[in-house]
Amino acid sequence: MPGVQLGSGVQRLRPEPPEELPAQEEQNLLLAAAYVSDAQYNRNVPFQTSPQAIRLYCFYNHWTMRVVTYLFICVDLSLALFEKPALFPLPFVATALAEVLCLAAFSARLVHFAKVTPQMVFWKDTKNICIMVTIVVTLIDLIIYGSLETVYIHSIRWTRALRPVFLINFPESRQIRRAFRSIRNTLPDILYVFLLFLFSVLMFSLMALKLFGDRGLKTAEGAPYFTNILEIVFELYVLVTTANNPDVMMPAYNLSWWYSLYFITYIIINTYIFMSVFLAVVYNNYRKHLKNEIRTLVYLKRHKMIEAFDILKVKVGTEFVVKEATWKQLAKAVAPDISSSHLELLLRISDEGQQGFVDKMNFLRLADLLNIQVVTVNLRRHPLEAWVPRVYQSSLSLLVQRVVRHRVFVWAYDVIILINAIFIALDEKHPFISYAEWLFLALYIIEILLKLYTYEPRAYFGRKQFWNWFDTLIIIAALVATTANATVQSARKYNSRQILDIVLILRILRLLRVIISIERFRVIVTTLINIGPTMLTFGGLVFVVYYAFAVIGMEVFHGKVRFFDPNFTSPDALVCGNPALKGSAFARDRYCKNNFNDLASSFVVLMELTVVNQWHVLAGGFALVTHQAAKLYFILFHIVVVILIVNIFIAFILEAFFVAYSLGKSEIETAIEKKIQELGVGIQEEDVQDWKLTGNMGTRDSTFSGNDGDNTKASKGLYFRIASKKYRTVDALLQRMFESEIAANEEGPSLEEILSFSPSDIYPKNPNFENSA
Amino acid sequence: MPGVQLGSGVQRLRPEPPEELPAQEEQNLLLAAAYVSDAQYNRNVPFQTSPQAIRLYCFYNHWTMRVVTYLFICVDLSLALFEKPALFPLPFVATALAEVLCLAAFSARLVHFAKVTPQMVFWKDTKNICIMVTIVVTLIDLIIYGSLETVYIHSIRWTRALRPVFLINFPESRQIRRAFRSIRNTLPDILYVFLLFLFSVLMFSLMALKLFGDRGLKTAEGAPYFTNILEIVFELYVLVTTANNPDVMMPAYNLSWWYSLYFITYIIINTYIFMSVFLAVVYNNYRKHLKNEIRTLVYLKRHKMIEAFDILKVKVGTEFVVKEATWKQLAKAVAPDISSSHLELLLRISDEGQQGFVDKMNFLRLADLLNIQVVTVNLRRHPLEAWVPRVYQSSLSLLVQRVVRHRVFVWAYDVIILINAIFIALDEKHPFISYAEWLFLALYIIEILLKLYTYEPRAYFGRKQFWNWFDTLIIIAALVATTANATVQSARKYNSRQILDIVLILRILRLLRVIISIERFRVIVTTLINIGPTMLTFGGLVFVVYYAFAVIGMEVFHGKVRFFDPNFTSPDALVCGNPALKGSAFARDRYCKNNFNDLASSFVVLMELTVVNQWHVLAGGFALVTHQAAKLYFILFHIVVVILIVNIFIAFILEAFFVAYSLGKSEIETAIEKKIQELGVGIQEEDVQDWKLTGNMGTRDSTFSGNDGDNTKASKGLYFRIASKKYRTVDALLQRMFESEIAANEEGPSLEEILSFSPSDIYPKNPNFENSA
Repeated sequence: MPGVQLGSGVQRLRPEPPEELPAQEEQNLLLAAAYVSDAQYNRNVPFQTSPQAIRLYCFYNHWTMRVVTYLFICVDLSLALFEKPALFPLPFVATALAEVLCLAAFSARLVHFAKVTPQMVFWKDTKNICIMVTIVVTLIDLIIYGSLETVYIHSIRWTRALRPVFLINFPESRQIRRAFRSIRNTLPDILYVFLLFLFSVLMFSLMALKLFGDRGLKTAEGAPYFTNILEIVFELYVLVTTANNPDVMMPAYNLSWWYSLYFITYIIINTYIFMSVFLAVVYNNYRKHLKNEIRTLVYLKRHKMIEAFDILKVKVGTEFVVKEATWKQLAKAVAPDISSSHLELLLRISDEGQQGFVDKMNFLRLADLLNIQVVTVNLRRHPLEAWVPRVYQSSLSLLVQRVVRHRVFVWAYDVIILINAIFIALDEKHPFISYAEWLFLALYIIEILLKLYTYEPRAYFGRKQFWNWFDTLIIIAALVATTANATVQSARKYNSRQILDIVLILRILRLLRVIISIERFRVIVTTLINIGPTMLTFGGLVFVVYYAFAVIGMEVFHGKVRFFDPNFTSPDALVCGNPALKGSAFARDRYCKNNFNDLASSFVVLMELTVVNQWHVLAGGFALVTHQAAKLYFILFHIVVVILIVNIFIAFILEAFFVAYSLGKSEIETAIEKKIQELGVGIQEEDVQDWKLTGNMGTRDSTFSGNDGDNTKASKGLYFRIASKKYRTVDALLQRMFESEIAANEEGPSLEEILSFSPSDIYPKNPNFENSA
Repeated sequence: MPGVQLGSGVQRLRPEPPEELPAQEEQNLLLAAAYVSDAQYNRNVPFQTSPQAIRLYCFYNHWTMRVVTYLFICVDLSLALFEKPALFPLPFVATALAEVLCLAAFSARLVHFAKVTPQMVFWKDTKNICIMVTIVVTLIDLIIYGSLETVYIHSIRWTRALRPVFLINFPESRQIRRAFRSIRNTLPDILYVFLLFLFSVLMFSLMALKLFGDRGLKTAEGAPYFTNILEIVFELYVLVTTANNPDVMMPAYNLSWWYSLYFITYIIINTYIFMSVFLAVVYNNYRKHLKNEIRTLVYLKRHKMIEAFDILKVKVGTEFVVKEATWKQLAKAVAPDISSSHLELLLRISDEGQQGFVDKMNFLRLADLLNIQVVTVNLRRHPLEAWVPRVYQSSLSLLVQRVVRHRVFVWAYDVIILINAIFIALDEKHPFISYAEWLFLALYIIEILLKLYTYEPRAYFGRKQFWNWFDTLIIIAALVATTANATVQSARKYNSRQILDIVLILRILRLLRVIISIERFRVIVTTLINIGPTMLTFGGLVFVVYYAFAVIGMEVFHGKVRFFDPNFTSPDALVCGNPALKGSAFARDRYCKNNFNDLASSFVVLMELTVVNQWHVLAGGFALVTHQAAKLYFILFHIVVVILIVNIFIAFILEAFFVAYSLGKSEIETAIEKKIQELGVGIQEEDVQDWKLTGNMGTRDSTFSGNDGDNTKASKGLYFRIASKKYRTVDALLQRMFESEIAANEEGPSLEEILSFSPSDIYPKNPNFENSA
């Protein structure tokens, strides 16, 4: 070996000696793959670049590790179901052990992360500090509670409210964290509007006290009307939410028509104008900050891709490029389960001139290219055609196929669905109608069989054929459940309520199919389904807030209000087991089951509070059984959830709808599509969409015959199409939401400018990674 | 004369002979002034160009005529107060006569309009047809009703619901018409979402019927639960509005926790997602159509200005211009009450090179220039300084002035206001506290006097000094009312409730002043005040819809529900005088005064329906006393007002806030400001603002000394400043909202392009004037 080294000494213009290449190259590839993968998934964790650290980092990012982490988070959060006050009680020892186990898993995950990332970065990151503090505090709380429990002193497990910290702070929960940051950024602006709003409420309260306080008016319940300033403030705050609307006005309005003007003015100013301003401020900030974050993300992505390029680049002629073989290895390393035909397609797009290498500009697109789902469509003949070609091609069979493909077939089934809906609405006790149910089931099954006969089954049940799957599953489930129900019924002369409920729901869900027959409806539903995953982010956000409030609510209110069977009419049952509620609106409205006695009930109560209506009755009830200060809990919940989170949700829906309505495909997707068309392996998306998504849309009688002209390709039976209607990650949707704007304002995404970017240009905006990760 | 004509025959290069000039020129000026005036106020009525027609047109546009028209519209609309069911009953003959008078006035106005505008245009305009049909139909209705009345048959005056047609369709009500058009344009898009939403509600209703219908559940009132499909649909529609939120769920929830999932799913889909989508669709359409309309308006304005230019232009050198004298005459004709100094300023801006003429580019800006309010500030010394200079300049006097100007003075008064607020909250029966009230009044009066001593009174009470006026008026009114109250009290040993109410309200309004001391609050309040006039458009829109619904409601429901004194506890009073209401939620909640027995009560009920909460109780009550179909009236009201109008209102607030936050001054305003600065007659707006608006903001001790350097100008004592914080017309705000965007997309407002515009480029987009007027 030293001999070879000597012999090649003359040619050492390239820095690495050839024999070091395999190991060194593999290592470089590993590092580059890590960068590209980070760019693809928008991960922004700085990691050490030693080979061991990179392997550790890849392991850290492996999906099994993430799933395990989420599993432990789920276990940890679900402990609230088993702890006192429990839905399913378990002894304290069991839940404590489970919690310690979870904490151990979190610690292990954190240690793993500390090994991967540089020390400096690790200790600067508030996320990690948060997790560590929460782990320690939870352990201490657990020990104190446990030891007090052994001597039969009951204390409070207050750290349970901190459990969502784990959900938020592990680096995987980027979306929820971003939503929280969005709220935090909105706070300063909203604070001033909120103070002004409070000032307005206080002024009106003072006026109400002076105007109505000493007239001896009574509310409908006979209580004194507007005599106490604190009560007035609460009532007027409730009026902003409109929950006590005409009631709070009635005593004054009964006295004189003119006093209604006071309330109308109040509602216009505080409910309509201030609440709209809240929405405007939240929306404005939401857009602004989201744009900044996405811009940073885009820059960071470019930067990582440039890093990857710099590692792999080779000089060819005057410019640096990445060789085709290296590029392929890299793509394989980043996306191990990519099909070779897909890889070939990406290469053809990246290396347009087929020069055997990929230049910088095209290399930087790799992460985006990998993010676009390209579905390979295997065009095969119908199996029946292969097995019994004569029968399948007979004139009768062809007629059947033509009928199934005809739009009248769709219309006929739409009519059947409508008739079915009428039958469902009718009383099903009549035997004729219960027989009709079997008829409808049979008709639906025949429809599916006919479609399977006409269309290629593997295409019909393709991965993206949501509605076909939906259809088939609903029908099969309905068939099974109806059969089960009939069996139970005939055997025991008794309807199983659970099975019947399921049958009924399935039966009605079948009717949903009508929607997809109507173009305009399908567009709206598709848009909603597209923004669905991002809506789940808000689900996570709401869950975190609900969980914290539920734990606090359970500690404060559990057992104060009890639910008795509705048929149980003892005086105790009428006041929800608490004499303090006697004569209250809470008891009168029979809200006993709206209590904090377990996690599930608490969530339902919090949902009711989110919907706002009657929240003052709930607040009043729980204030009666504890203390008037308990109302603060409910007001705080209203401010956090309704004024902040619901408004951000609305802002998001507005923005997403505008984008979905106006945005076409992104530049890179169009590039791929163009390439697919050029290469002649494309199927016009519209045709496929119509043909497969709805089975037979009827708007055109398109089959694959449209592509028959290109025989050489068709014989291969391999087609690509872009599954552009789905977004793989939430980030992708968000980036699409703003990429067009950034392009216009920044000229950032133009590659020429990015090339001249130094890391220092990027990082000052984002001094620690907490802001962007 | 003919001799002169002959003599000047040789020089007839210019088309008009000199002796025809005075008459012809005057006529041209008149026509040009009409065009400019139309451009200034965005009127788009095509008129005939004969001198008589122009004079008639100017008369048509004269403010007295408009005021008279509005007066008659007011009288016509207010007739509903005096007709059965009346707030102030009048015999039928009186109201019928008044109505005929109004109809005559409307006819006269219409005839006037027909004289002004070309025949073709008049008959093509749906607005005119609408008015004529309404007049004829109303007359017929009046005759039928009157003749039936004479034979004692009571019929229905259904054309009363058409009265708002006059308010909408006279060309002056552009804003309301535009809002209606905005709704009409949104309808097709919203229709599909609405149908999908209805479909979803129906599906869920069917599911509810099947799931809960045959379990024998009872509501809290003991009624059967979810057994009738129509009732279920109504209940679930109410649930979308959240008005019956936990109540509708409770019976099912009491049965099993799992059923709450049904309702939670329903609320998430229908209340949160669909309602947000409605807002998104409305907002999207609102922006889109508004942009189109404003663009058309801008183009039409340019076109009219070009017409005016073409009439007045004179060739100087190679280009056409308008001579200074003509330009001045034109400006005087368009704005007769413009001050000569203001005119001079505009000329200096338009004729930058002082060449004695205005070129086309600058001429086209005239309408915009006239729309910008330039306030001439007369800088005079304080009157006291003129009268008793030695006393006013004494060191004690100067100390007082410095104290008043110091920020501590503001803070001191803020503290006084807060103490005052506490005193108001306390019980005023105590003599010490009622004396304190006099002390506070005295303190406030001293403050105003001190400020008048320090600042120039005419500047302090300038036209735009809203807060100074507010302050002073409130204090004077409070002084008068408190004195009156004290007099009445000591004379009759009895508090006059009306006077006391007024005193109390005035006392609390005084506290508002605290807001303007805090910068951030002032910004929000200023924004709200700025968009206030446009919000009034929505007031008009809501009024029109309310009026029509109120008239229908009065015809259908009047007298069905009666209000008795709250202390009157006969069984009749408890059921609002209608046995059908026995046991209903309407009677239990004591909603008897929420009835349709007169216009004022109807408006209050409709306001309550707009706020949504408890609307199902009102709907249920009125359905009980008439027929279940009456609920359709309430559902229709909800769809029209809450889903359409309130969403458009929110869309407008969102848009206006974004614009107000982000938009600076428009280009032309900046040009004027630059000119003012250049000419050295400017006052930095900030300084004046601070100095005058808040008396003494404290942020800087600015006096006029900053301008003392420019002695020649200061000695004149005449300064200009732009009152840019106010918008003169609603159109101006709307145009500002979109002008920046149009500029970017269209390059339309660049004058060069407009110059090459032919009328045919503009009009095809807008075939009849109905769309833009």
